[in-house]
Parts: sequence; structure tokens; C-alpha cells
Amino acid sequence: MNDTSSSQTLALNLARAARAAARTVATATSEQKNRALEAIAARLDERREAILEANALDLASAHETGLSAAMVDRLRLDDGRISSMITGVRSVIDLPDPVGRYEPMGPRPNGLQVGRVRIPLGVICIIYESRPNVTVDAGVLCLKSGNAPILKGGKEAFHSNGALVEAMRAGLQDAGLPADAIQAVATSDREVIGALIQADEDVDLVIPRGGEGLIRHITRNATVPVIQHYKGVCHVFVEETADMDMASDIAFNAKVQRPGVCNAMETLLVDEKVAPWFLPRILGRYAEAGVVVRADVRARSIWSQAEPATEADWDEEYLDLTVAVRVVSGVEEALDHIARYGSGHTESIVTEDSDVAARFLQEATASCVMHNASTRFNDGFELGLGAEIGISTSRLHAFGPMGLEELTTRKFVVRGEGQIRS
Amino acid sequence: MNDTSSSQTLALNLARAARAAARTVATATSEQKNRALEAIAARLDERREAILEANALDLASAHETGLSAAMVDRLRLDDGRISSMITGVRSVIDLPDPVGRYEPMGPRPNGLQVGRVRIPLGVICIIYESRPNVTVDAGVLCLKSGNAPILKGGKEAFHSNGALVEAMRAGLQDAGLPADAIQAVATSDREVIGALIQADEDVDLVIPRGGEGLIRHITRNATVPVIQHYKGVCHVFVEETADMDMASDIAFNAKVQRPGVCNAMETLLVDEKVAPWFLPRILGRYAEAGVVVRADVRARSIWSQAEPATEADWDEEYLDLTVAVRVVSGVEEALDHIARYGSGHTESIVTEDSDVAARFLQEATASCVMHNASTRFNDGFELGLGAEIGISTSRLHAFGPMGLEELTTRKFVVRGEGQIRS
Repeated sequence: MNDTSSSQTLALNLARAARAAARTVATATSEQKNRALEAIAARLDERREAILEANALDLASAHETGLSAAMVDRLRLDDGRISSMITGVRSVIDLPDPVGRYEPMGPRPNGLQVGRVRIPLGVICIIYESRPNVTVDAGVLCLKSGNAPILKGGKEAFHSNGALVEAMRAGLQDAGLPADAIQAVATSDREVIGALIQADEDVDLVIPRGGEGLIRHITRNATVPVIQHYKGVCHVFVEETADMDMASDIAFNAKVQRPGVCNAMETLLVDEKVAPWFLPRILGRYAEAGVVVRADVRARSIWSQAEPATEADWDEEYLDLTVAVRVVSGVEEALDHIARYGSGHTESIVTEDSDVAARFLQEATASCVMHNASTRFNDGFELGLGAEIGISTSRLHAFGPMGLEELTTRKFVVRGEGQIRS
Repeated sequence: MNDTSSSQTLALNLARAARAAARTVATATSEQKNRALEAIAARLDERREAILEANALDLASAHETGLSAAMVDRLRLDDGRISSMITGVRSVIDLPDPVGRYEPMGPRPNGLQVGRVRIPLGVICIIYESRPNVTVDAGVLCLKSGNAPILKGGKEAFHSNGALVEAMRAGLQDAGLPADAIQAVATSDREVIGALIQADEDVDLVIPRGGEGLIRHITRNATVPVIQHYKGVCHVFVEETADMDMASDIAFNAKVQRPGVCNAMETLLVDEKVAPWFLPRILGRYAEAGVVVRADVRARSIWSQAEPATEADWDEEYLDLTVAVRVVSGVEEALDHIARYGSGHTESIVTEDSDVAARFLQEATASCVMHNASTRFNDGFELGLGAEIGISTSRLHAFGPMGLEELTTRKFVVRGEGQIRS
């Protein structure tokens, strides 16, 4: 009981401090925010040693708790990685500031001038994995878009995140902005997050990233709006008219180039009319690359080495060198499969038939639909947003990569000369 | 236990039928949707008698349960009101269809063509008061924007809504679209709504309208995203340079013209430098109109007839002929008051000083900020959206009046020539 109420007090203090700071950064000029970004870059550079010492503490705990090699690698900082962070901060300076952009909607018959102007969302609580680079990325993208983030990274990165956030707060103050415009949850007490995601008055948005279980838990318990960054069960559909070399390269790239990310392909759909020719070709390449293939009956009749797929495979985000393969009768069946099993992330068709491509691009519902391209391009940088805070699989507000503009909203602005309603 | 599971079954059946129908209406052409709208108008016209009979059943129950006169008036249908509904349906035919609108983002250095296209949100569950006209408005706006609504109106309008939804479903079928593209929850079983707002797989959005208690309950229990249409604690701030005639007219109109709606003014803020002159003037007009005034100490020192305001008054949405009045030292204190007590709905300043106006329009955070205009103009029709399904006070996705475009989202579309990621 005591613990709960002190957790709630801590959460409310964080949220209220963020709300107050948000009012200031919301109206800061682009120049002021850019000065703060430059100061943050300088502070990160100056504090390299302290950051690496904090990271060493996290790495020591990771060693004790037997964290996996992949997670330790994500956690580890070195001089090169800090330099990359600093370069990342400076690159945000060059991005256009969406705040204050005015979209006129024209005068009304009664003479009212109506338009919309972009404003920050306000206070954003971001919950993420144990990747210290996300701390800096999320902090500076929120700052540039005039928001006040409350950052909660994985507990394995506790000390690293603390040092990075302190550097960012010092940079904010150097530029005359309130330090509380970037805060971290400096405890691993879960009740603090539980209270933050219900602090409707002072928190405007929660962005949970990471495991599906965590995201579902947050969604179930939040009263603050949530934008989910769920899993990517992405498909590539090789249609009968596809250029077979292109199809093979796209299916290979989408699966193998970086299998552990959400825009990697998980299920390959192949038209039955080209399967006898295409499947041996791509599955041979997969075999050489060590990809485990889990295939339906029709695909196994062509490539008997494949393991049999079960119903669960069509829903699976392997995030690994495993692929599910299914033979379909054409675009109709491919679209049905995607409507049923797709997670709304990324869907790609390989075809030379422009009518079929147009149908697929229209009917497949996902944050990004593609024709003759690898699913790996569904990414804020690759699509031209300049940066991303993640890839939303929620249809509301932002569907797909979220850049600076997606961290803002619009309010109506009305200019009158005394108009009243009759 | 049995009841719960049958409620859940009913909810899932509704949601799945909506999902299936949504796939069809999402790709229907504007012409097809407009034909359905025309057929719906015709069916409503043809079924006037059945609709009025259903409405008579609701009015009889309302009489038995002693519903207030205001609520009975909202519930009552007559030939004129049905004609208005039909006119409303036909007016939606003329509105531009946002679905399929393409926004190019230009080619990427690797040659990928990137853009975004507007798509429907999908399945939308709308929970609203006992106003039969909302049933038709919401149904046809969702249809035009390619969505499949599940409508849940107040139980007092049960029979009326049933008859209206049946007419709309007949119209959909006349035009070759699935009847399930518009469904009603044909039970007052609350568990059905409880299950619908957690049916993440098949429901994309919940829009609750009505009382704050209901909206909070839905928000707390939903796992599906919610766009809240909360209360409007709207302010008019009369600045020292204001044209006093204009200020009086705006403050009067904003409070008195239709006090029972969310964009009516609830609190009047007056600069201390003009209060001695302005307050007697506006408060005299309010007194003549029967408006109860609840004022702070400084205002009461000028207008002693006013009742003393308490802290609770600043948070109050009276929705009635009552107004809270406060004297402030200038725009700074006005903005502080609004930041603290405003509900993010509508804020208006009356001033002749364009710098002060610019500051207010920038710093006041609400779905609509105004200069020299009545708060009553924050409305989808008045702002030029052509129609509205309500006024969102959520910053996410749509802040302010929601028209057809706000019932859609965007997906990325990528066209390549075999690009893969290196």
C-alpha cells in the first residue's frame, strides 16, 4: 500500500514536471530547439567517459544475470557507438521542424478564416527495450517536435540510460530550455509505469515498443492513448508473371538480410503456376544461407526437404532464419491469407502485371504495401521521413514509420472579425 | 457465466461480420457508395411509417420511465425530422470521398517511388446518446469513408434505431453492398459493448460520445483505440484592447445562443484593465437572459449580484444558462487559467492587438483556438469539413471536429523495380 502510493507519487511528479516543461518546449522556436540539440551533442561528446562507465555497470550486471549474447551486443556502448549517437543528434538539427506549420482551409462564407496548425502532442511516455541508442533517438526526436518525453528503457540498460539522459538534460539547460523536457523513469518499479499510463491529465501518449506481451499489457492497462509498435508478420507474394530473378532476390533479401527486425519477411506466398520452377530456386538459396523452411503441403510436394508448417506458423514472427512458405492459387488467395494472418505491417507483391499490382496495393491492408521491392524498406529513413521513433501497427494517428510529423497533431485556428452564430 | 459467454459470442459475431463487410466497402468505388447513399435515402423515405411506429414505442417507454422533456425532445421523430435525415444523407453524396487519395512523397535516391494513400480505418464501434439522427449520420459518414460501423445508441432509442438501421441495411443491399457494412447492437446487454471494446482483432476504433462517466468507463476498459469526445470547458478571454461591443456580442453568443452543447462557453475571463467597464455591460445582458453568474472575488467587487465561484466552477461544464467569470491580470494569467482548467475543446480571445492574438493562438492548446469569434463555430459544418461525426478532444489522430477525412488513415505505398536493401 505504501509502495503503491509512493510509486503513484513518483509517477505524478514525473508527469507534472513533464507537462510544465512541455508548455515551454511547445512554443520554443526551431532555432532554440536546434541550439539544444547541438548542446546535447556536445554534452554527449564531453561525457563519453562517464557514459562508458555507466555502461560498464550494466554490462557487469548483464554478465551476472547471463543475458544472451545478442542482448549484450545491443546493450554495449563503445566510442564508435557514442560517436554514432552524436552524429544522429546532429542529423536531427537538419530535419524540418513540423511545429507551427500552417495549412489554410480557406475562408468560410461568413468571412471566418479557417486553417490548421501543427502542434506537439505534449507529454509522451516511451517504453522500450534495453537499447541505449533508443534513449537518445527518442529524446531528441521528441525535443525537435516540441514534446516532453518520459523515457523508460529496459532495466538492463538502467545506468547507461541514466548517464545519457543526464547529458541530454544538461544540453537542454545549456540552451535555456527546462531540463524536465527530457526525463527518465529512474526506477525499475513497475508500478510507476502502471501509474504513468493512467495519468490522463498529464500524459498524452504512450508508445510501447518491444515484446508483444509487454505491449498487450500496456494496452490493457492504459487509459492514456497508446500507439502500438507490434510485430511484423510480413509477406512477399510471388505472382505468376513475376520476373523470377527479381522475385528470388527480393524474397532472399526480405528474409536473410537482417532477420531479427520487424520488417523482415516471415511468410513467402508463391503462385501455384510458378511454384514448381520458383520454389526449388529460392529454397535452394535459403538452404545455403541456413534458413529453416516450414512449408504447406503443396510446397512440400515440390520441395520435400521442408518441415511441415502448422497453423501456428502463419501467425509467427520468427525474427530469425526461419521462413514459412505457402503455395496459393493466385492474388485472391494471397490477399485472403494476408487479411487473415497479416499483422498490418508490410506486404509486398512481385509481379510484372500492373493490374494485379494495383489490386494488391489497394486491397492489402498494412502500414506499407509494396510492388517489386523488399519489405526491408518499411523504415522511416528509407521512406524519406528523415528519422523514426518506431513503426506503428496501429491504424489510428500514424500507421507505419513515425517521424517528426507523426509526433505532432493539428489544431484548428479561426480568425474572425466578431462573427457570432445565429 | 453463460450470459457472459453468450454476450461475447454476440459481440464477436458482430465484429467478425463487420470485418468481412469492411473489406468490401473499403474497396467500393465512390460511385458505388453514392448509389448506396441514394438507396438509403429512398428506403428511409419509403419506410417513414415503420420508423414512426418504432419511435412511438420508444416514446411510450420514455413516458413510463419519466424521461426528461429535453431527452424526449431529442428522441422524438416526426415527418419533418425524417425529411431532415434524408436531406442529410443526400448531402453526404456531394462530399468528396477521401478514400484512395494519393499523396506522393517523391522518389528515393534508390529509385523507389514512395507515397501515401488514404484508406478507411476499418470497423468502428460508435457509442452514443439517445438521438436517432446520430444513427443515420454516423452510419452514412462511415459508409462514405469506407468503414463498417457497429452502432450502439442509447437504450431509450432502441426501437427507433432498429428501424433506421434496417432501412440503411436495405439501402446497402439495393446497391449491391453487404448489409453488414452497417450494424446495430440489438441488445441493451452491457457485456456486449464490454466485449466489443476489447475485440482488438476485429474492431479498429471506438468512438464514445455522451456523458463523461460513460466515456471514462469505455476508456478504462477498452483495448481497442478510443477517440474521446469529452466535455468542452470553453473560455472566452476579453483582452484589454478588445472592441467592447464585439466582446460583448461574442461573450453573449458563446454562452446563450445554445448553452447545452459542448462548444458553448463556460468561463469568461476578463482583463482587469477593462473589467470595471466591461463586466457590468455583459453581466447586465446575461441577467436579462436569465444567466446565473458565478464569479471570483475580483469580479464580484465590480458586480456584487454574482454568486461566489468555488474552485469547482473552473472545471465545470454547465451545459446550461450558468457562466463562471474571472478577472485576470492579462494574457499570461488567462493562458495559465486555460492550461490548468481548459478541457482542450475551444478557446477564444477578443482583442485588437494582433501580437497578443498571435500569442494566444499559439499558446492556448485546444482542438480549436479563435480570435474575435464565438466558440460556437467549433463544429465540422462551420469549419468547412462538410459534416462531422463529433468533436474529438483526444490529441491523437483527430483533434477537433471529425469529418470524412478523419475517419480514414494513410498507408505507405512503395513502387520499385526490384530494389533490395544492402
